Amino acid sequence: MGLIVQKFGGSSVATTEKLKLVAEHIKKELDLKNQVVVVVSAQGKTTDRLIAEEKEITKNPSAREHDVLVSTGEQITIAKLSMTLAEIGIKAISLTGWQIPIVTNSNYSNSRIRYIHNETITEYLRAGNVVIVAGFQGVDENGNITTLGRGGSDTTAVALAASLAADRCDIYTDVDGVFSADPRIIPEPKKMDTVSYDEMLELSSMGAKVLHNRCVEIGKKYDVPIYVKSTFEKNSIGSLITKDNNLEDLVINGVTKDDYISRITVVGLENKIGRTYSLFKLLSEHSINVDVIVQSFGEHITKDLAFTVKMNDLPKTLEVLEQNKEAISAKEILHCENLSKVSIIGVGIANKPGVAADMFEALYENNINMHMVTTSEIKISVLVDANKADLAVKALHEKFFK
Amino acid sequence: MGLIVQKFGGSSVATTEKLKLVAEHIKKELDLKNQVVVVVSAQGKTTDRLIAEEKEITKNPSAREHDVLVSTGEQITIAKLSMTLAEIGIKAISLTGWQIPIVTNSNYSNSRIRYIHNETITEYLRAGNVVIVAGFQGVDENGNITTLGRGGSDTTAVALAASLAADRCDIYTDVDGVFSADPRIIPEPKKMDTVSYDEMLELSSMGAKVLHNRCVEIGKKYDVPIYVKSTFEKNSIGSLITKDNNLEDLVINGVTKDDYISRITVVGLENKIGRTYSLFKLLSEHSINVDVIVQSFGEHITKDLAFTVKMNDLPKTLEVLEQNKEAISAKEILHCENLSKVSIIGVGIANKPGVAADMFEALYENNINMHMVTTSEIKISVLVDANKADLAVKALHEKFFK
Repeated sequence: MGLIVQKFGGSSVATTEKLKLVAEHIKKELDLKNQVVVVVSAQGKTTDRLIAEEKEITKNPSAREHDVLVSTGEQITIAKLSMTLAEIGIKAISLTGWQIPIVTNSNYSNSRIRYIHNETITEYLRAGNVVIVAGFQGVDENGNITTLGRGGSDTTAVALAASLAADRCDIYTDVDGVFSADPRIIPEPKKMDTVSYDEMLELSSMGAKVLHNRCVEIGKKYDVPIYVKSTFEKNSIGSLITKDNNLEDLVINGVTKDDYISRITVVGLENKIGRTYSLFKLLSEHSINVDVIVQSFGEHITKDLAFTVKMNDLPKTLEVLEQNKEAISAKEILHCENLSKVSIIGVGIANKPGVAADMFEALYENNINMHMVTTSEIKISVLVDANKADLAVKALHEKFFK
Repeated sequence: MGLIVQKFGGSSVATTEKLKLVAEHIKKELDLKNQVVVVVSAQGKTTDRLIAEEKEITKNPSAREHDVLVSTGEQITIAKLSMTLAEIGIKAISLTGWQIPIVTNSNYSNSRIRYIHNETITEYLRAGNVVIVAGFQGVDENGNITTLGRGGSDTTAVALAASLAADRCDIYTDVDGVFSADPRIIPEPKKMDTVSYDEMLELSSMGAKVLHNRCVEIGKKYDVPIYVKSTFEKNSIGSLITKDNNLEDLVINGVTKDDYISRITVVGLENKIGRTYSLFKLLSEHSINVDVIVQSFGEHITKDLAFTVKMNDLPKTLEVLEQNKEAISAKEILHCENLSKVSIIGVGIANKPGVAADMFEALYENNINMHMVTTSEIKISVLVDANKADLAVKALHEKFFK
């Protein structure tokens, strides 16, 4: 007998019919003699509707009251799913975030989980219940309702799986797993059977919107096997996210793309200790998020430094840099807009120089110019012109998955 | 500086515009240097919508999960009202039933309040907040969400006023107070400035749907002055429900009507101790609610016993009585359908026999037949044919209020 945590998102629980489908997924695990804890999101567009109603009242809602408002969405789902299960003879009980409780800090609308009390859940499981938990919500130490922000229900599910030492956490979504590329660009991307936590973190932060990084990080920290499965495809096997991966074999696990990027080059920085630090401190003080950074070292008195920011941060970034040009001792600020970052992800990339060569060859053959290259242990990213980005994804997919 | 509890029902909080109107009522009390606790219901048809969605899933919802579901309605309102107040610069905080907590028994969907913790509310009041409380809901001693059933938000308001020793409880509704008769029958009924708790209890149970009996009972027990006021009429003074009433003066305070009543007569019951008891025990075992009971005593070996039940309980009642005719030793079961109960309410009626005579005269003059008469300390009720009921109300209103 195992313990499984299942998570169903908003589109999986949107209607009475879909709730019945969810109940079937739960029943399947019970038939296998497993205990089941289910985490659900708000139904369909419920949260959007509540936020639209909120906007009618105020443009600057109190974060505390916002959480009181939107947390009702998941509460509605848990009650309905519990009733749906009862209709097919399955004993179930619903629990809100505060009833468990899932205790968070008081950072409303973007709270972090501090700890989870297991007692209530385990008692209900022991009494033969399916336990249905409202995702996305918690309670702070003063009894205020909190919500976890983006990816909240995934985070609830993996955190519960960690806390309860569940055998696995199944994240049901509307796709059948983690894919090697966005199906909107590559018509038949390859589904990955196994992905490591680190690869998944790279994939998530690079625009593969299957799982939020927070939940993958918790999975990694507590070693929770996470399956990403389809709610709607029967017998979906999905993808397993886990630490196990054979580091000897190089596996390119995905090609991703991130749009709306601009590159800024700071030319002629004094080649002295502390200069790079003061530049990025300045940007951080203005809440500008920097992604890739490349620095050219040499024997010169000066150095050049390039980095990328999101397009909508570009005007602010240029303004800040120009105003502080002297302070940071830069000669010139150059920039380049309308770029995309295209990456290949795979454990062991760092140990196989041939991969980079294959990647650059594929881009060269397709006449795609690279504005910047960076590599990490498990990924290689290049900046390309935005209008060549989809072509780049196709070329790389062709190269590594055919 | 006083402490006022205000309660706004579903139609008073139905829209963003109406919430602004509610905020004005709150602001008025703050301007008078009062502290304010506000109890709200779910907006407009929210509860009805949730119940309709529930019916899609099941015809027999778990009472526990039903309460989890419907309690979201009030939670939405408290957050929205808190935001509405913030928009006009009023510091406010929302509290659900469990956050206070309002502790009830575990009788889901029809829970009784056991006790209320005042600490959280009084702390927030002391810190200068308007405290906005979700009506209708509580939490049992095991942390399950409960709801209070019909009249729940009124009950929350008056119970809070009692617990906090508030100076008064203002119940805002869509009528401007308690009236001497239903405005749908009497075009210009008299608004009562003051009504005693007992009169209000009679009025409520007789079909004047302004306040639920439970909240009046709590008001009476803890001596909470309750004002019934209009949300929509500016400067509404409303009606005060209180214990103070001059018992020396006879005041007829209302004429009420209760429809869909049938009378059953059990003829020829053995005139022995225990016969009446076993008859009503039998009905109670079948969950049949009996209202008026009249028993004819005499020197005979047998007695007749008449009582009223709601029309929709009639078939079941007749079936039960016929099946047990021998057991209860009845000769015959007669019944009469399509009756209405018309009553006049007023402190001191019992001490003024002339009132009954005036009442019967008014009915006689209008050719209205009385099928049964009962009296209490503060009311006289008669059963009349349903099609004469409105005429009876008019005749009595004419008699006592012109």
